[in-house]
Amino acid sequence: MELELAHVNEVLRRTPSTLNSLLRDLPEPWLVHNEGPDTWSPYDIIGHLIHGEETDWIPRAKIILEHGETRPFEPFDRVAMFEESKGKSIAELLDTFARLRDENLRELQKLNLTAELLAKRGMHPELGVVTLKQLLATWVAHDLGHIRQVVRVLAKQYRDEVGPWRAYLSILE
Amino acid sequence: MELELAHVNEVLRRTPSTLNSLLRDLPEPWLVHNEGPDTWSPYDIIGHLIHGEETDWIPRAKIILEHGETRPFEPFDRVAMFEESKGKSIAELLDTFARLRDENLRELQKLNLTAELLAKRGMHPELGVVTLKQLLATWVAHDLGHIRQVVRVLAKQYRDEVGPWRAYLSILE
Repeated sequence: MELELAHVNEVLRRTPSTLNSLLRDLPEPWLVHNEGPDTWSPYDIIGHLIHGEETDWIPRAKIILEHGETRPFEPFDRVAMFEESKGKSIAELLDTFARLRDENLRELQKLNLTAELLAKRGMHPELGVVTLKQLLATWVAHDLGHIRQVVRVLAKQYRDEVGPWRAYLSILE
Repeated sequence: MELELAHVNEVLRRTPSTLNSLLRDLPEPWLVHNEGPDTWSPYDIIGHLIHGEETDWIPRAKIILEHGETRPFEPFDRVAMFEESKGKSIAELLDTFARLRDENLRELQKLNLTAELLAKRGMHPELGVVTLKQLLATWVAHDLGHIRQVVRVLAKQYRDEVGPWRAYLSILE
């Protein structure tokens, strides 16, 4: 499917409410259990999404628009949340994510992107040349990827509890 | 994690609102595209969840409580929705799913399940002996598995649009 700006907005604006529905007021163990060593809990994932709102998507869009390929993006710190989330409740993190997402979608609107601007090229520090349109498609897929991760981590808490049904539940593997 | 009835209820009651957040009023192409031949669209998945509410979880719980291992469950028709959803809008399907889930969680409450009842055994037509507790854990994991499937199908619509970022997005594979 080809990217449409209206669709990008439609999907991105839903992520805070989807995560609220899945996680807000869920009993603590579901929020902090992960999938094993070096994996993330739902709590960690929300912190990671917050860091993306702060440093990744809109800042990179602006670098592309202002500097094109001449200025590579700042590398994105995938694990910044292990420091930044410290001491915060899940409710606080969900609120922060919702506020930042809302602000960023307003910023996106203000960029008044045209087909020509969407085709503008930037420089990813590892992947090389990318376009603004690819950045926005990645924002969408990244959101959905982490919603998927949240539900997988939740499901795995019942890996042993489902007994023989495990054979039918690919989410548990 | 060991199953607790209150947790089962907590997770199951959230699924209708999570699916509403992801899908209600989403532009049509996102609802009907799937992952290729013999795969399901988000529209198909909601129909499948409805069929589960009607014929799988609570009916099977009652068979276990009333008949134990002496009466195997009716086999579950995984693709009944291809007929049953015909002509219905996604909004209609989401409403039906929410209503049935609400009714079924009331039914679950009325069963007044104790640890002893949760340990009761039933007969799965393919898997053999299962317990009521395993059935409830499977209900939870099945929900989460299909939310995961919905977000994966959505993400895959942008598989080509993300360009080189595809290398970082495991949800697209």
